[in-house]
Amino acid sequence: MDKLHLDQHISQQYNADLEDLRTELLEMGGMVEEQVRDAITAISNADGELAERVLVVEDEVDQREIALDEHCTLILARRQPAASDLRMVMAVSKITRDLERMGDEAQKVARMAIALVEDGSGSQGYVELRHLGNSVQTMVHQMLDAFARFDVETAMNVAKEDKQVDREYRSATRELMTYMMEDPRSISRVMNVMWALRSLERIGDHARNIAEHIIYLVKGLDVRHTSMKEIEKQLRERP
Amino acid sequence: MDKLHLDQHISQQYNADLEDLRTELLEMGGMVEEQVRDAITAISNADGELAERVLVVEDEVDQREIALDEHCTLILARRQPAASDLRMVMAVSKITRDLERMGDEAQKVARMAIALVEDGSGSQGYVELRHLGNSVQTMVHQMLDAFARFDVETAMNVAKEDKQVDREYRSATRELMTYMMEDPRSISRVMNVMWALRSLERIGDHARNIAEHIIYLVKGLDVRHTSMKEIEKQLRERP
Repeated sequence: MDKLHLDQHISQQYNADLEDLRTELLEMGGMVEEQVRDAITAISNADGELAERVLVVEDEVDQREIALDEHCTLILARRQPAASDLRMVMAVSKITRDLERMGDEAQKVARMAIALVEDGSGSQGYVELRHLGNSVQTMVHQMLDAFARFDVETAMNVAKEDKQVDREYRSATRELMTYMMEDPRSISRVMNVMWALRSLERIGDHARNIAEHIIYLVKGLDVRHTSMKEIEKQLRERP
Repeated sequence: MDKLHLDQHISQQYNADLEDLRTELLEMGGMVEEQVRDAITAISNADGELAERVLVVEDEVDQREIALDEHCTLILARRQPAASDLRMVMAVSKITRDLERMGDEAQKVARMAIALVEDGSGSQGYVELRHLGNSVQTMVHQMLDAFARFDVETAMNVAKEDKQVDREYRSATRELMTYMMEDPRSISRVMNVMWALRSLERIGDHARNIAEHIIYLVKGLDVRHTSMKEIEKQLRERP
């Protein structure tokens, strides 16, 4: 399963350090995935209580980000990793950042869920929220899967899925604009849905960023700011 | 001037490597600062041509991000830096990311400027854009200054300024909502202003993130997710 050839070290402790880093990242990832799922459920079902729970987790996610970053710096200072080990540490340090931002956006969705519950009545935008919510949740899940198995193909799928999410987001935004024009009394309510959709779209962006870090980690290719077609070409040329 | 005590190395080349890193980051920072300034001028003056120029620079900024990151990895692999050198490399790697996102947001502002020019007529939101635009520009400028001089005090000011920008942003958003309610025909136009304001607020967030990386770089303190009061306390306790 493990397609990344992490250097085997004479020091057992070094191996354990790298393995710990991976486990810690997966734990943080699982936490953020749950936050995203709960935020989407909360806003889809107008569940204020669940939304409050999403807000509480945030602190823990923030602390994990700091701890993971410290761990990365420690490994760099103590072990002076090279090649794929170095890529692993650098990628983890970047991925934690994107995970934390994802958690931030989930928190924003939860806040909008609470605002929508307080606003009461009105169902404009719920279809759009459910739709985009489902797509984004799938992306986040696949992205963690790709990291757990160092799987470039799944990472590529996540990156592709982001294009689809962007399209869905744009079409949802247009739909919401017509709601506002048809019924100006709904403006403040629909704006809350608009901000929530925006956050969902950002969560998709972060999942894509992480997918790119995974490709870098496994293949040593920096594919940021590169078109899908070009990435596929470069991957074919690599062993 | 230079308050950070970068380790002095027997290897001249190592010293030069670290100095180059700093220069490259400042160059990238200057580029992004110009992008932000032009985007704000373009949207404040309804200058479509200037907005188009902002879009063109983006590619160059993206390439700089990749090059700087490669440079960081190279130094880590070759020089195995420790202590403040290691912090410098890690901070630069994080700062480039925030700079690139800042450029992205400037691009979004530029796109909204173009949309507003095409929409023609209507002046709702221009006051808000100018106001927030000014505050954000000052933050970006101070942030680069703080990095150039490794100056923690200026970095702290940037972080504080972000609170003010967030307040201004919220009040501007409320103002725009009333415009839409009063004149529903303006909805699509005002939404463009809304997205531009959102991007400006994000640019402020990134400037604050960078300010935090600067504090880490100079003082070795990770101040993310920490209140202003707590940061000030921790800084007093450090030499």
